Formats: sequence, structure tokens, C-alpha cells
Amino acid sequence: MTKDTNFDNLIPNDEPMVQVKDPTTKLQWNVQPSDFSKLCSNPIRKIVDNLQKTTTSSKTLISLSLGDPTVFGNLHCPDVLVQAIIRNTRSMQHNGYIHSAGSEVARAAIAQHFGSISAPLTLNDIIVASGCSGAIEIALQGLVNPGDNILLPKPGFPLYQALCEAHKVECRFYNLMPEHNWEADLDHMQFLVDDNTKAILVNNPSNPCGSVYSKPHLKDILALAEMNKIPIIADEIYGDMVFGSNMFFPIATLTKTVPVVAVSGLAKQFLIPGWRVGWVMVHDRNNILKDVRTAYFKLSQNILGANSLVQSIIPDVLTPVPESAEEQSLLDFKKRYFTTLEENATFTIETLARIPGLEVIVPQGAMYAMVKIRTDILTKIKDDLSLTQKLLDQEAVFVLPGQCFGMTNYFRIVFAAPHEVLADAYIRLAQFCRRHQ
Amino acid sequence: MTKDTNFDNLIPNDEPMVQVKDPTTKLQWNVQPSDFSKLCSNPIRKIVDNLQKTTTSSKTLISLSLGDPTVFGNLHCPDVLVQAIIRNTRSMQHNGYIHSAGSEVARAAIAQHFGSISAPLTLNDIIVASGCSGAIEIALQGLVNPGDNILLPKPGFPLYQALCEAHKVECRFYNLMPEHNWEADLDHMQFLVDDNTKAILVNNPSNPCGSVYSKPHLKDILALAEMNKIPIIADEIYGDMVFGSNMFFPIATLTKTVPVVAVSGLAKQFLIPGWRVGWVMVHDRNNILKDVRTAYFKLSQNILGANSLVQSIIPDVLTPVPESAEEQSLLDFKKRYFTTLEENATFTIETLARIPGLEVIVPQGAMYAMVKIRTDILTKIKDDLSLTQKLLDQEAVFVLPGQCFGMTNYFRIVFAAPHEVLADAYIRLAQFCRRHQ
Repeated sequence: MTKDTNFDNLIPNDEPMVQVKDPTTKLQWNVQPSDFSKLCSNPIRKIVDNLQKTTTSSKTLISLSLGDPTVFGNLHCPDVLVQAIIRNTRSMQHNGYIHSAGSEVARAAIAQHFGSISAPLTLNDIIVASGCSGAIEIALQGLVNPGDNILLPKPGFPLYQALCEAHKVECRFYNLMPEHNWEADLDHMQFLVDDNTKAILVNNPSNPCGSVYSKPHLKDILALAEMNKIPIIADEIYGDMVFGSNMFFPIATLTKTVPVVAVSGLAKQFLIPGWRVGWVMVHDRNNILKDVRTAYFKLSQNILGANSLVQSIIPDVLTPVPESAEEQSLLDFKKRYFTTLEENATFTIETLARIPGLEVIVPQGAMYAMVKIRTDILTKIKDDLSLTQKLLDQEAVFVLPGQCFGMTNYFRIVFAAPHEVLADAYIRLAQFCRRHQ
Repeated sequence: MTKDTNFDNLIPNDEPMVQVKDPTTKLQWNVQPSDFSKLCSNPIRKIVDNLQKTTTSSKTLISLSLGDPTVFGNLHCPDVLVQAIIRNTRSMQHNGYIHSAGSEVARAAIAQHFGSISAPLTLNDIIVASGCSGAIEIALQGLVNPGDNILLPKPGFPLYQALCEAHKVECRFYNLMPEHNWEADLDHMQFLVDDNTKAILVNNPSNPCGSVYSKPHLKDILALAEMNKIPIIADEIYGDMVFGSNMFFPIATLTKTVPVVAVSGLAKQFLIPGWRVGWVMVHDRNNILKDVRTAYFKLSQNILGANSLVQSIIPDVLTPVPESAEEQSLLDFKKRYFTTLEENATFTIETLARIPGLEVIVPQGAMYAMVKIRTDILTKIKDDLSLTQKLLDQEAVFVLPGQCFGMTNYFRIVFAAPHEVLADAYIRLAQFCRRHQ
């Protein structure tokens, strides 16, 4: 049989072009990722991946970018915790499945530690999750539908936005005001509210700001929530980590009417961020969140998020026997840890205050400071991306640009590193700024 | 002012019925749970919650219902694992954040242990998750969209269905054939496939069946997948836990073309189900899952699912130094553990075979047996719900009805309990069946 190539498409050939063994056989693999996965992204990664990591400096890299206080090895988790893990691993009593919302003893300990007369909790208000991130996801996923909106702080922790965008929830960012100690702009917050606003997220003490809100400011936020009948999601993972005369008030203790879904965990306060122990606390004295609370317990069944071994030590660290050696040891640990952070904060404030071109907004808690970049003073520094890139390149110091948190012309310093590391980094920062006057 | 109640709605009143202080103030709280949370449910719970838990029997309750081999205290995790946790807790080197998809050493160890010449793996194929449940969620969520369908085994592990329904993925159940060692009915499987079928889930060894598939049967499933160009999700959490001459073949080792997303974990093989250490393994030699693999890594960023402490011992248990004391200790542990399970399986098969009205489908692996209820022989036993309820009520023995797994007129026995507990339970079961002849 001769073949006229010009008519290949018109004249049927005796043999099929492709050998099809079975009429139902598909010829090509075409496996696509889900739409949901396409919505998942890490906003920090997007920005950081665009930075040039190569440095022309011969200096050792100092990274003050990661919100992990264990990374330099100068801060250690309490010995009570280590001993409890060893005891419970040896006992083999904590290897099996536990309740999907967490073991009863763990939940009771959390309720006892975080509950108070002004904001009581029982174990039925607690859902243990895979870290505070897992708790935030449960808090959001039980409350908000695609198309709803939620009010988020700006600047703020980027996971809020990432989770909302993955679940097609609209993020509306209320401004925090650096000139007022990063307090929320309540007029702006009210302006953003509409009938589809399902929650106001308040992060206190704040990442990335290191701010700690006063009682009056928290009451103002609650009044706005009350007026609009919108529940609060309170990320209080840095609760208690405050400096000097600042005081931390759990927002739930300041209201008898506004329902508050608070999230926290062991990560930062006990220096074990990798252990993923977080929880949701439902403060709801008027049964407004009755069905939402049920939803949270249902969500916890989907993925058993809490590890039985690390959960087993929650009572050891949150509810030690009063006046026991363990309690004293934990108190000593906290004092040592928070004193270190406070000294580092003071050193950071004092040192950076002497660097022309930078303005530190004084941190009151947590382990973060936001530093304003005076682009009018510093030459060849266009914005925060430009500064962080050049600082990395010229001085091998890495800090996160404010844009990672939604705020241009700031950068965030994590000041949990040892004093000598901070001192070295700040000398380099000063030299950098001097060169750019 | 007088008020005519009949005209309340018609005649405007001078005073508002309700005191509104501010025109923008909402009067009522109305906080609803999300639609997503309403889709989340645990199919086992729905059925088990309807059982009457009170028993009229004075006997001690024996529950053979939970797929947790640690629950009776007769089976212990390996000592190598205990020592590794103690060492790594003391070192304080495993307290900080790790890569969201798992630490590199853990992923490398998983790739080394589970990879082979016929199905190679690198650490870039591994995503560590919060238990095998978390791995299943990642495997599904990266691959399937709402409205797509997926083929699931019937009977099967109910979490598959729960996760699919939460994400609005249609479940199509292919029959497993009890008379053919619970092999998949391939004609039925093919019948269920359409253009929206995005994955075939294969669970081998099977929960609840305890079946272990032969190489030819797995190849038949692969041929069907190849013909339809549908990837396989392989739940192989019970891999290696096989009895006698049965052999476990990872399905990925039997194909060079069909992409396989396998999930597994430490839970069952190392007796630490509560520790939530699972993983996804992407077997994809022809880059068909390139974008899906990226999607899996993106999904792992949403929730950091893997605990740094328990992940740190993965190399200790999966890749011990060859011919070391640790390797020998792990081999001894496995031998001891699997021998116990095999003896329990044999005892279960032999004992139940002598009970008229019951038919055990011989288990070949895992720790489960499905028992057929001859409703034609047993009187006053309408179905599996009726049997399990009456057995609990009269004999204080609790087993899960087959309907929990989508299969009526069967019940599942977990035979990981100590011999004497099983013996006691089976005596009661025999007495129960004798009474119901």
C-alpha cells in the first residue's frame, strides 16, 4: 500500500496511527493538582525566595529572621518538661490513641491554667491541636465560610492570610498604628465591617510588633465587636511574655458578652515550637458559640492533630503541684527566660536608637521588634526589600522585610539570640546605615 | 398613651419597642458554624453512638473494637525507640521548627527504608504528616477537587469516606469479595470509572479485612489503573504485618508506569499510634505527578503536621546501623510482635470456626478479622447491628459492626489483645451464638 502524505488526514489508513489495544484505553496520563493546593502558599516564602541568598560579605551569616527561640541554643526548655517526657516515654502509657480533641487530663490542665473567675473554662471548652497553627486553622474553619470576610491585623502573622486564602475567605486588614504602640485603628476596623464579617482576629502580644495591648484598648476592641456582634479570635500564643510594667490581659477576661475563641500553645513559652502542641479555648458564657464549639470538636475528628506523648506532659508544665519543687523549677525557668528576652529587648531598643535612619517601635513583649526604615535619611535604600537584601549582601545579617507581614518600610528583628550575636548584628547594622547616610 | 394591642403593627408607637442606643448596633448575636464543619463526621461514631452502652451482663467489658494494639498493655513499642526519644529529649536538639514536609534526615530515612530498585525514592518524594491520617488527607487534598470522584474499597477504613465527604469529593465504592480473599471486584471497579475519577484507593494489607493481596491481583489493579490512566493511592500502613507464607508487595514495586501515592507511618508497626507519625511517598518515575508532588509540599506548609521530637527517631527505627545491636533489637521486636499477632490470628480462626452461625474470613495480615454472621442460622439476629448490640448487652463483648466499614452482616474483631482476653471473649461469643441457634 502506498501512502500519500498529503492526504494523511483525509484518507483512512488501514492501520491506526497508534496501537490501541482496547477501545476504552486512555492514551495519555493527565494528572493535575487540586485547585485547593493552588490556593495554598506561604506569603513569607514568596518574598524570601526572591531575595538573593548569596552574600558578598566574608562575615558569618547572622539570621535574626526565624520566630524560633531555640535556634541559637542559648534558650532551653524547662527541665520539668524533659523529665516528664522521659518518664512518660518509659511508662509506655502514652503510646495509644487518645480523644481526637485531646486527652481529658491535658484539656483539664489547660482549662485550669488558662481559666479564671472572669473567664472560666472547662475541659469541654478545649480542643488540642497540632500546634497553635493547627488551632488557628480549627478556629477559622469552624466559623467562616468561603466568601465570608475576616478582619486581620496589618502588620500581622502571615499564616492567618494563608489559611484564609486557602479556604477562600476574604481577608480585610485593619491598620495597626505604629505611632500608638501598634494599637488597632478602630475607625478603620469599623469601616471594614459588613454583614459578611464573621470574626475579628486580635493577636496580643503581637508577632511581628512585640506590642502588648492595654486593658482600655482591648475593651475598645470588645465594644466594637459587641456593637457589631462579631466574635473575636484571639491569638495569645505570646501571652505572659511581657516586659517591665506591661501586663498581659487575656481578652476573654475583659468581657461577659463577646464570645472569644482564644488560641495558644506550648511552643513559645516553653521553648518547644517544633513539638506542635496548641489548643483552642472557647470562651462563651452565653451559649452563642454552642454550635461552633460542636463544629470544632467535629473538625478535630478529621485529623487527629495532637500527639499523645507530648500532650501527656501538659499537666506537668501547666498545673504543677502547688509549692512543689517542679513548680519552683518552672517559675525559675520562666523568670530566667523572660529576663533574657527583656534584657535583649532593652539592648535592642538602646542600640538601634543610636543608629540614624532607623526607628525602633519599642517592643513590650514576645521576642520581636519592628524597626522603621527612614528612606528619607538612608540613601540607595528604596524600601524594606531593598534594605534587607543589601544588609544580607553587604553585612551577612538577615532580617525579614516588613512586607512579609503586610507593612512596607519596616523590618522585623527576632531578639531571642544570645547577647553577643545581637551585638555583632547591630554593629554591622550600624555600619551599614552609616554607609547609607 | 393608650395602646391598642390589635393595631400594634399598624400604628406607629412613639417609643421604639426595643431601645437602640446606636443605629449601627446589632441587637442579636447569630454565630453559625461553617458549612465545612457540617460535612465533617466520623461514620463509626454515628453508628456506635446509637448502640446502647449499658450492659445487663455482670461480666467485665471486653472491647475488641479499637484498632490500637497498645490498648491492652501486652504489646510494647521497641526499646530502641524509647532510648532514642530519651536521648533526643535530653539533647534539646529537636525542639525547634523543622521543614514543614519533615526534617531531611527523617525523609531520607523513610526514602531509604521504603525505596527499592523497583520503586526508588529520594527525600524529595517524602512528605511527613501528622499520622497516616494526615498523610491520607494530604494525598487526597492535593489530587482531588470537589465534584471529582474517587474509588474506595468496600468494606474499608471509614476515614477515607469522611475526608472525601468533607471536601465534597464523591465516593464510589468498589466491592471486595469475601469469597475471594477480599480481592477487589475488578469488573465493578471498571464499571465505576468515569472521566471524573481521579484516584483509586487501595488498602493493602486491609483494615478491616486483614487481607493481603497477591502479586497477580495487585498487577490486575495496576493494569486497570494503567488502562484508565488513573493514579493509585496506596494505604500501606499495615505493610509487612503479614502471617505465614503471605507476602506483602508494595504496589509501587509492581509497576513502572502507574503513578502511586503511598501512605504509611510508624503507628502500627512500631506500636505508637498516638504519636502521629505518618508520611506520603510519591512514586512517580515518569513525572506524571510533578505538579501534584509540588502541591503536596505546598499543602504541608499550611499546617506543620510533623512533631520534631517524634520525627527525630525515624532514622533510629527505620535505618539502624547494619548489624548493630539496635538493628538486632528491632528485628527481635518485630519477630516477637508479629508472632504474637499471627498466633492470635490462628487462635481466632480456629476458635471461631467451631462456632455455628459465624464464618471467619481467614486474615493474612494486620490485626483484623472480618466475621460473617449467618442470619439464617442465628435466631433473633437481624443483622450486624443487632448482633453487636446484643453481644454487648448480654456478654459484655464489644466488636464493631460491619456497617462501620460499609458492609452489613459482618463484624470486625481486633485480635491484638492478650490470648487470655481473646479466649474469654470467644467463649462468651460461643455461648451467645449457642443461645441464638
